[in-house]
Amino acid sequence: MAKRVLIFAAHPDDDIIGCGGSLAKHVNLGNRVSACYMTSGEAGSLDYSKDELSTIREKEARNAAGVIGFKDLTFLRNTDGYLEYDRSNLKKLVELIREKQPNIVYVHHQSDGHQDHRTTFQLVNESLGRAGAPIFQEFKGTPWSADIVLAYEVWTPLSDFEYVEDISEFIDKKTAALRKHESQTKSIRYDEASEGLARYRGAITGKGKYCEVFKVIKMPSLS
Amino acid sequence: MAKRVLIFAAHPDDDIIGCGGSLAKHVNLGNRVSACYMTSGEAGSLDYSKDELSTIREKEARNAAGVIGFKDLTFLRNTDGYLEYDRSNLKKLVELIREKQPNIVYVHHQSDGHQDHRTTFQLVNESLGRAGAPIFQEFKGTPWSADIVLAYEVWTPLSDFEYVEDISEFIDKKTAALRKHESQTKSIRYDEASEGLARYRGAITGKGKYCEVFKVIKMPSLS
Amino acid sequence: MAKRVLIFAAHPDDDIIGCGGSLAKHVNLGNRVSACYMTSGEAGSLDYSKDELSTIREKEARNAAGVIGFKDLTFLRNTDGYLEYDRSNLKKLVELIREKQPNIVYVHHQSDGHQDHRTTFQLVNESLGRAGAPIFQEFKGTPWSADIVLAYEVWTPLSDFEYVEDISEFIDKKTAALRKHESQTKSIRYDEASEGLARYRGAITGKGKYCEVFKVIKMPSLS
Amino acid sequence: MAKRVLIFAAHPDDDIIGCGGSLAKHVNLGNRVSACYMTSGEAGSLDYSKDELSTIREKEARNAAGVIGFKDLTFLRNTDGYLEYDRSNLKKLVELIREKQPNIVYVHHQSDGHQDHRTTFQLVNESLGRAGAPIFQEFKGTPWSADIVLAYEVWTPLSDFEYVEDISEFIDKKTAALRKHESQTKSIRYDEASEGLARYRGAITGKGKYCEVFKVIKMPSLS
Amino acid sequence: MAKRVLIFAAHPDDDIIGCGGSLAKHVNLGNRVSACYMTSGEAGSLDYSKDELSTIREKEARNAAGVIGFKDLTFLRNTDGYLEYDRSNLKKLVELIREKQPNIVYVHHQSDGHQDHRTTFQLVNESLGRAGAPIFQEFKGTPWSADIVLAYEVWTPLSDFEYVEDISEFIDKKTAALRKHESQTKSIRYDEASEGLARYRGAITGKGKYCEVFKVIKMPSLS
Amino acid sequence: MAKRVLIFAAHPDDDIIGCGGSLAKHVNLGNRVSACYMTSGEAGSLDYSKDELSTIREKEARNAAGVIGFKDLTFLRNTDGYLEYDRSNLKKLVELIREKQPNIVYVHHQSDGHQDHRTTFQLVNESLGRAGAPIFQEFKGTPWSADIVLAYEVWTPLSDFEYVEDISEFIDKKTAALRKHESQTKSIRYDEASEGLARYRGAITGKGKYCEVFKVIKMPSLS
Repeated sequence: MAKRVLIFAAHPDDDIIGCGGSLAKHVNLGNRVSACYMTSGEAGSLDYSKDELSTIREKEARNAAGVIGFKDLTFLRNTDGYLEYDRSNLKKLVELIREKQPNIVYVHHQSDGHQDHRTTFQLVNESLGRAGAPIFQEFKGTPWSADIVLAYEVWTPLSDFEYVEDISEFIDKKTAALRKHESQTKSIRYDEASEGLARYRGAITGKGKYCEVFKVIKMPSLS
Repeated sequence: MAKRVLIFAAHPDDDIIGCGGSLAKHVNLGNRVSACYMTSGEAGSLDYSKDELSTIREKEARNAAGVIGFKDLTFLRNTDGYLEYDRSNLKKLVELIREKQPNIVYVHHQSDGHQDHRTTFQLVNESLGRAGAPIFQEFKGTPWSADIVLAYEVWTPLSDFEYVEDISEFIDKKTAALRKHESQTKSIRYDEASEGLARYRGAITGKGKYCEVFKVIKMPSLS
Repeated sequence: MAKRVLIFAAHPDDDIIGCGGSLAKHVNLGNRVSACYMTSGEAGSLDYSKDELSTIREKEARNAAGVIGFKDLTFLRNTDGYLEYDRSNLKKLVELIREKQPNIVYVHHQSDGHQDHRTTFQLVNESLGRAGAPIFQEFKGTPWSADIVLAYEVWTPLSDFEYVEDISEFIDKKTAALRKHESQTKSIRYDEASEGLARYRGAITGKGKYCEVFKVIKMPSLS
Repeated sequence: MAKRVLIFAAHPDDDIIGCGGSLAKHVNLGNRVSACYMTSGEAGSLDYSKDELSTIREKEARNAAGVIGFKDLTFLRNTDGYLEYDRSNLKKLVELIREKQPNIVYVHHQSDGHQDHRTTFQLVNESLGRAGAPIFQEFKGTPWSADIVLAYEVWTPLSDFEYVEDISEFIDKKTAALRKHESQTKSIRYDEASEGLARYRGAITGKGKYCEVFKVIKMPSLS
Repeated sequence: MAKRVLIFAAHPDDDIIGCGGSLAKHVNLGNRVSACYMTSGEAGSLDYSKDELSTIREKEARNAAGVIGFKDLTFLRNTDGYLEYDRSNLKKLVELIREKQPNIVYVHHQSDGHQDHRTTFQLVNESLGRAGAPIFQEFKGTPWSADIVLAYEVWTPLSDFEYVEDISEFIDKKTAALRKHESQTKSIRYDEASEGLARYRGAITGKGKYCEVFKVIKMPSLS
Repeated sequence: MAKRVLIFAAHPDDDIIGCGGSLAKHVNLGNRVSACYMTSGEAGSLDYSKDELSTIREKEARNAAGVIGFKDLTFLRNTDGYLEYDRSNLKKLVELIREKQPNIVYVHHQSDGHQDHRTTFQLVNESLGRAGAPIFQEFKGTPWSADIVLAYEVWTPLSDFEYVEDISEFIDKKTAALRKHESQTKSIRYDEASEGLARYRGAITGKGKYCEVFKVIKMPSLS
């Protein structure tokens, strides 16, 4: 049966860098993928005003999602570089989780070197718990718990991981999707960085030519 | 399809304390359970000589396994209280893993307060890697990798866990199995300790009346 | 000579779950027990409005305290689920510590899984230091330093502890007190969770049938 | 009532550096102090043969103890620089603990930069547990548990400590005792290092002009 | 060629305590030293009003700097005891770094026991990264990256350090500078604390009579 | 002036994977490079007997060194997969360090996933300390301390690093050197893994197209 997959990213492009290959695999398996971006990454360039860049990057995110094969994107538009762990974000995230009812969730890992990435983990991790508990009156929607939660790597490679995904069949799609983030890759070649790390992970784990690795936050019990 | 389950324990009774409920669930699902004990726990009493106690505890382990519903037990008979991370144990474990070809493995977690428990984790964790790699000539058998590896709690409760098993239906079996370890429970009531912790885990996680919790060491990828 | 004991809890019932047995022991020794609740736990149910639940839970806290044998309760009424480490709370806590002049303090441990619990630890730990230092003009009262500070377990069992309290004589009182928190125990059986964990701690440490364990934050010097 | 105090040190002089002031305070209180040295520190000089240095350093330890006011010294004579966590040392330590029946134990802390110091902690910590448990047939003597266990600093200052001892009255004695370790202080001025650190600890904690600080490993329960 | 050195301190006097000897050495080498204080330490006394104390401590900082030999001091005047990691401080720090263009930066280490010290580390560490990246439009000035970043110890000695500075020639200057902070040293003898710790570090590392030690945050690459 | 560089590796090829680019850079700068291999990697294949493989891999190491431009290789020939922290290895390493008198040392980092890699770190780190101290009579040679010690990544990427080396000019040499380890790269493409990780490090740090990153263990003081 088709699964619902929800990925949380601090900025547009983090989703593709961290697990673009896995997302393409989900699409290929017939699963439904949605993405939620905490900020629209408007701090990432001196070439555009913040408003322009925000608009550009949301469009790039849609293009990248198009390459992967999904089109359900939510932009929370927090301030890039200053994402806060606060009540407003918790409420939005809890209600989004209850609305999307994901079986599988992807999120930044908690030791990533970028502050916004760590804050995204904290917000999402707390929201996943609250979304499943029928006790907070301020949150709308029906309680929902994801079965699987996996944390991906962007700025800081994981020291330990418990899950490996062979994305060899999807590496081209992943790289092509990343190249849609033109405003970013023209200064930092995330596409090459990401492909390089995937090749490293693949060779060292021996699970495939290109792999993505994840820290397990939640694994489903025996049926 | 029936799965093969292999549990590693430092001493007879650790298997039941740490995951006796899950083992009973596996048996109930039709899975094949095997256990491997690093020592025969001969240090655990002043009432018997070491040889007597070793014999008694192996018999208790068989009785407990009988209650749970499995009978494939391997005793490696290292010295209780002085288990060593060495070449001889690695070889035995690698070959046992290749022989039993488990889909699912259970082992002590690496931060348990008991030195033998931590050493068991280190030995098993290293052996799982070596059993799957076709590079060590000194190990007999065909390379084998388990799909799932879970770490259980005995002397030190886990601070973080990513897997919860509802064992409510099997708590009576678990407790009854523990009571077969009479030489132990007459001085320390492991049966009551274990039931108490399972009740705590069940209530706090909300996943069932009695639960066992685990740290995920390896989770299978999406098919 | 009678001691003054002060316990800090994020929510009404955390005090009883974490150290209700020790508190009953203090009362029995003739010590004077006071409690301070950071929030009134108004997020913990969908059955009541926040205002109603706040009122109910404060009353339950008084009833539970009555069972244990103390009646000095302070409610700081921060927002449940959103407790903040801020100047206002620090001021209230420093002045409360200076007013109550406790010899012994109990507080959540700093690695508890619940954010409000960790924030309570941070607030109390910082306030204990500031309460004892004669340098902050904004705080009223006379500097005071507690002799003993112990951290208790609620949502996350302690991995290491340096202090064990045998509460076997008081387990019934502890459980009875917990049952006064009816609005909570009807959804989560904290009474059974807590008794289960105490039995586990008792059996494994061998210090009594039921025990509470603590991380030592401060221990008094040799006289 | 007089207490029995037992200090474990990797090398002669570690006892004085880490807690010489506290030991002098114990003597002053009428407590009985004993010391156990894992090695005789024979690696610590190029000026003497190992045998000579071993003899010299044991004599210096006796002289230093004389200054502090105790004379019960045990030398286990392991190889300096290569102390091992093994069965033989565990047996010696368990039996020494059972023989000396200490109320209070001092030992290196587990994160000290010197390997022998860390191994001493591991040996002593494990031995304290085994000495108190009536289950190991190979250990002679009657089970005994210390009430208080404190870990002191030598090569690596403690990041966190829960116990402070004001040794201002005894700093001269401590420094004088250290100077008895002439074979050492002529190359490294441990006396000045130790006095410097004690002054730092005293000023920063505000508990006295000179202080020693400790990590609490075990604290006695309320009577 | 002369280097530019920039030190960040939570309070006036932390700069001298943590690396006053190194600063004197820089001055002696002909390097240009600047200091930036996050707060003016106005919480540190009951004898003066906050405004008075702030004025006094800034004057003491100038006097201390005079002893060391530098006079470029910036006071950010955050609230002492409540320093916040926020956008306003990040902006000030990024622009200061771009203005001063330091080759070498000193800052509190991230595990210091004082909250303001840890927050200073987080602010400065993040600001160093942002100051060097040409992507944040809100920050004025030209991107600048320091070559060397070192973290010093004040309230909590470092457990590990990778850099040692022999300050024996400058210890008198360091101590004299600290004594200029009269409003502080009359209650806490930071001068003696600091000299004591430097003596300890010197003797134990064997690198000089008095030493300061540092955690390396950034080290320059091979030219 | 030419520097002496000494690299320690658990197995032949770890040196090239971890810092082959930096070594080529040293050769290019006129520095003298030496390498020491703890084992000869004889466990890494089923296609050859251990003796054959050992011979092959030492030859491959010489070929790889030839590509980089150095030829001083020492093989300690410990058992691959079972490297031990013991007295014999410490003695060999201390004497090698005293003989080679390196200014700069490279070694595995202490959290690498491979046990032999971690043991190599522990042995080398301890040996560096002992090589510099004039106190161990059993070690021949004149005391020597390296100025710079850097730890490289192989099986586990570093979470934090303080040193980045731009190896863009030398990436081809590094990859070519790795391909000399034919017995290895035919089963695991270390050449592609290593190039991929270097590209990732380069893009993310922005310091060059291909970079190697290091944890600083020791940094030289200001002259």
